[in-house]
Order: sequence, then structure tokens, then C-alpha cells
Amino acid sequence: MRRLHHFPLSPFCRKVRLVLAEKKLVFESITERPWERRIELCALPEFVETGGELMTDGRAIAEYLEETYSPPALLPQDPVARAEVRSLVNRFDERMFAQVTSVILHERVLKRFEALADRDPDQHALRSSFEALRDHLAFIGSRADEHGYLAGPISLADLTAAAHISCIDYFGDVPWQSFPSAREWYARIKSRPSFRLLLSDNLPGFAPAPHYANLDF
Amino acid sequence: MRRLHHFPLSPFCRKVRLVLAEKKLVFESITERPWERRIELCALPEFVETGGELMTDGRAIAEYLEETYSPPALLPQDPVARAEVRSLVNRFDERMFAQVTSVILHERVLKRFEALADRDPDQHALRSSFEALRDHLAFIGSRADEHGYLAGPISLADLTAAAHISCIDYFGDVPWQSFPSAREWYARIKSRPSFRLLLSDNLPGFAPAPHYANLDF
Repeated sequence: MRRLHHFPLSPFCRKVRLVLAEKKLVFESITERPWERRIELCALPEFVETGGELMTDGRAIAEYLEETYSPPALLPQDPVARAEVRSLVNRFDERMFAQVTSVILHERVLKRFEALADRDPDQHALRSSFEALRDHLAFIGSRADEHGYLAGPISLADLTAAAHISCIDYFGDVPWQSFPSAREWYARIKSRPSFRLLLSDNLPGFAPAPHYANLDF
Repeated sequence: MRRLHHFPLSPFCRKVRLVLAEKKLVFESITERPWERRIELCALPEFVETGGELMTDGRAIAEYLEETYSPPALLPQDPVARAEVRSLVNRFDERMFAQVTSVILHERVLKRFEALADRDPDQHALRSSFEALRDHLAFIGSRADEHGYLAGPISLADLTAAAHISCIDYFGDVPWQSFPSAREWYARIKSRPSFRLLLSDNLPGFAPAPHYANLDF
């Protein structure tokens, strides 16, 4: 059986879980705790195909699933449109991850497992990440207003952005009231059956924000 | 005519130039100087197709060219093998870029154009990047010993790694004598006709290391 080793609050792992669910592929889900160092966080997700083939790297796995199990397609047919989706995917997985998701994850979760004198969240670092988050939400909102989804029909760009947003929303850190267009876009993605799995995540010791699993947030 | 806006010492731009040359696609090459702020460095390369379609993001452009102009193929046919190549591409474009290429570029070139009190290279930052570079060279050498190229026949993985290495080698910062396997691999890539364009690069004010264009280095 297909197997996915993942950390519930890694946006890269979340994306792969969404793609597997969108394509209705059954898989055994194995939760890793990166602080136990069996598999490092940066090496997750780890995907094992039915034939035993091992793959790593969220984006490479998503492309593999898209090539192997379409329809439903998560990349457009037109090569120029595909390039646009891929550049958006990289924008979220790199810029948004570096500026926002990685900071929030580190300050709110991972830090507690490190040998640090001060394991409390660094409020200054969090504030900078919230600033950057506002830019990303404005960008998502303006794209969604124009296209419905981020680039034409729903694609890997939407699932990637939603994977990041959902990690941040787990902690209640998304200022939804200020970004109605992004909120509408996220509500649409959140109500897809593929999203249910993520909404039931509950990391022991880190309860999700009260509205996290609420479809009407 | 196809047009590429690029910065000669950006590894992302270099990769696209290599892919265009491997596929024997003619293009107008427009050199940007990121410190003039017409286009920011992180927005490069910018590629304009014959029909006027604009694309950004080195990886997205490389995938576009691969989908549109193959053969020659720079990704294997098998989906699992493609996933491996893509994960290697991401490894170099992210980990190697963050740890090595971006540091060397910043310390040796970009810093001089910033409003900084101290524009001299930070020797401590450079030393850390050289440490990390050794790990990447060892990795490249061990893959090349096993496969000839990094993953089967020459692919986007090799061109990506070579794009980074060539930026570093421009400044003479690659300790070739300690990494004979990586050196042999690089000599093979460097002697490809597609590489000639990069070897003739000469950034005004930043002359390349004496051996930079030498095929027998």
C-alpha cells in the first residue's frame, strides 16, 4: 500500500496529502515527530509508492502524482499556463515559507523541542512574519478576485497556498477580517472533501484555534 | 524573437541559458544589473516567448522549455526517475543557494552596491559557505561516481548544479583539488557546447578567476 511519512504541520506534507486526496488515492498515513530525529523535518514528506519506490520533496512528489494520476488534473494543459502555476507554487513554498510559515512553526512549535534557554515565542520574529503574511493574503485575494482560483481552475498553486495558510490558521494567526477576498477563496478550498483530513489534525500539546475546522469561520 | 532578461551571475538565470542552449533555441540575451532596480534580482530570469508570453521563475521556465522543446530531453521518461531529478533540482536551487551561492554572490558582488558601512566581504560568512560547499561537492562527486551524471543521463539536475558551481567557480572559490570526482563531472559539463556562453561571461569590475573558462582546470 502507498505510504506517506509526514509531519501534520509541515506545509510541504500538507500539500502532498491534499494532492493524494484530490486524486482519491488511498494511502497509509504515518505521522512523524521531527524532534525525535527519526526523519529530519526538511526530509519530509517521504512517499512510498505501491511498488516500494521511495520519493522525497513535496513538490517533486506532487508533480509525480500529477503525471501519474490525472485526471483530475491539477496543472493546466497549456505549457505557458503550467509555467505560471509552477512559479506560484515556488513563490509560496519558498518566499511565503521563509517569511511566514517557517517562522510561525519554529516559534510556536519546534522551539519547544530545542535545547534553548528561551523557548517562548520571539514576539518580534512573529510580528515580522505577520507583516509579511498580510502581503501574501493581499496577493492571494487579488488573484482570487480576478480568476476565482489563483490561476484559472483549481491547481497545485491553490493547494500549495492553502497548505501554508492552513498551518498558520491552525494557530489562529490569520487576520481573516482584513482580507475578505482571501477568506472567500480559503472557504472554497476548505470545503473541498480533500481538506477534511487536514481539518481533523490535532497535534498533542498544541490544540488548534477554535475556528480551525469550522467551514464558516 | 525569444528574449531572456538575466543577470550573468544568477544561478537561476544560468540554468535557463543552459537549457535554451541545450535545446538549440535562439534568443536575444538582455543583461540586467539588479542594482539599477529595473528588475529585482529575485524576479530574474524573465523569459519572453516568440508570441510575447512572459514567464518568470527559473525552474518554471526550465520545465516549460522541457515540455515544449523536447527532444533533447532533460528529464527522464519514467515518473519516479523524474521525481528524483526534480528533488535534486530543488536541493541545489534551495539548500545550495541558501548556504553557498547566495552568500558568495552577496559578499563578493551585490554588497558593493548596497548602502552599507562595510562593503568588504564578511570573511566569517564566506568561510561558513565554503564549509557547506564541501558537502555539496562531496555529494555531487558521489552521485557522479555512481551514475556518471547526477541521476542517469544528463538532466536538469546536472544543469542546475553546474549553474551554481559555475557562479562560485567564477570567483575561484571551488576547492577542486580536494574533490576529483566532482571536478571530473564538472569538466564533462563544462566542455558541452551549451556551456560556452557562460564561460565568456565577464562582469565589468569583477574579472573571473584565471582558470574560469579553461576546460582543463
